[in-house]
Amino acid sequence: MDKLSIVKIGGNIIEDNEQLGKFLTAFTKIEGGKVLVHGGGKKATFLAKKLGVPTKIVDGRRITDEDNLEITTMIYGGKINKNLVAQLQAIGCNAIGLSGADGNAIQAVKRPVKEVDFGYVGDITGINTSFFKLLLQAQYVPVCCAITHDQKGQLLNTNADTIAASLAKSLSKFFNVALYYCLEIPGVLKNINDKESLIGVITPNIYNELKSNNLIHSGMIPKIDNCFEALYNGVSQVKIGSAQMISGNTKYTKLILDDE
Amino acid sequence: MDKLSIVKIGGNIIEDNEQLGKFLTAFTKIEGGKVLVHGGGKKATFLAKKLGVPTKIVDGRRITDEDNLEITTMIYGGKINKNLVAQLQAIGCNAIGLSGADGNAIQAVKRPVKEVDFGYVGDITGINTSFFKLLLQAQYVPVCCAITHDQKGQLLNTNADTIAASLAKSLSKFFNVALYYCLEIPGVLKNINDKESLIGVITPNIYNELKSNNLIHSGMIPKIDNCFEALYNGVSQVKIGSAQMISGNTKYTKLILDDE
Repeated sequence: MDKLSIVKIGGNIIEDNEQLGKFLTAFTKIEGGKVLVHGGGKKATFLAKKLGVPTKIVDGRRITDEDNLEITTMIYGGKINKNLVAQLQAIGCNAIGLSGADGNAIQAVKRPVKEVDFGYVGDITGINTSFFKLLLQAQYVPVCCAITHDQKGQLLNTNADTIAASLAKSLSKFFNVALYYCLEIPGVLKNINDKESLIGVITPNIYNELKSNNLIHSGMIPKIDNCFEALYNGVSQVKIGSAQMISGNTKYTKLILDDE
Repeated sequence: MDKLSIVKIGGNIIEDNEQLGKFLTAFTKIEGGKVLVHGGGKKATFLAKKLGVPTKIVDGRRITDEDNLEITTMIYGGKINKNLVAQLQAIGCNAIGLSGADGNAIQAVKRPVKEVDFGYVGDITGINTSFFKLLLQAQYVPVCCAITHDQKGQLLNTNADTIAASLAKSLSKFFNVALYYCLEIPGVLKNINDKESLIGVITPNIYNELKSNNLIHSGMIPKIDNCFEALYNGVSQVKIGSAQMISGNTKYTKLILDDE
């Protein structure tokens, strides 16, 4: 099967022009098919403040109301996505920016209301693999923003980590998929304040141990859950590290299943 | 050759949800390949006002500075484009939103500075016809916003009428292209205040006559110039009318060459 690398980057690198330039150059050099998935939280928060749109947080989780969805669509789907694509094009990478609505790429449902109504937040229900195959086989490089749609006309704000993992799982039926999560930190750390405490390898057993010793902080848990779910569903390789990981110049955390 | 319809809509119909819904339904029913091209000026002006970004006008023409380009990218490439795509997807049209940077679809150069520096405004230099052919042959429906790129990382604000005409000309080598300009008014009028004064057919000779009698107002001239240039370059049909023209229920202005 052909190789496919799916790389997720967060808001931090998008904010830093120099780091972003280096990352995009390294990304472009990855051999084989590739997909970039991006968030971009800070720019959305900044625009929301400028427009006087309040950020609603319930139980520590952000609520996406209509105004916030509009901002997300403008920032993720417009400003960040189109600028990333233009920058990639400038260095010879034939990028194409996508929301989940484009080509019906990523289908979702509005998250069902239980205790909290998260608003216009999407839970992914399907990936249009034939669309991604069409683009990848023609050497195009999809650049996916953190927006999906419900196939009824509604755009939905969707976690970029989950988009990357869902793409990896679905496309692993057709490609030999490596999934990369690029963070501000060098990977999964035993001590969040000590960059030297990088954990080189995490298996499900090690993960359970780390969790029971409270050595993994809250934001990392859904990310690692996404990673293992990807591995259990056909993804060949999962790595968590800094953006420099893509150029192969730094250590990172590799996630593997216990029987590997 | 396969039929291809290229339809340009302006800001007025995008602002009107009911009219937009009717238009998109009619657009979806067009047989054969189709491309939608949209502007969206009013929403950009509205956001600029909210953000306190001044609109610069020199000699009656808008200047696109960095702040205005950012707004254009958010509104055209993000908000309007993604919502149009989601709405088309909801009615069974497999739309894919594109800026000119996506897939290197539409290449441009920053307009050379003569008397006026128009800022980040693009003059089109090329169309990636193989990209459009790939999408159209796989039954996808490109939805193009009024943004191009210079292949060096710079996005450029570009007139949507010109994008539609350039696409029509370039794709007429591979398709039997019909080009439709949808306006607020029912077509080209002899008297802008009288909707009954619709001119049914315009040839270059009639056009020259109308111009020399000052019967065509300034905004219409570049549009009609675009239309004739398209006809001279292989486009089969060009029509200027209201958005209802697409459903075939209204009169419109047809542009033809003198020898037809």
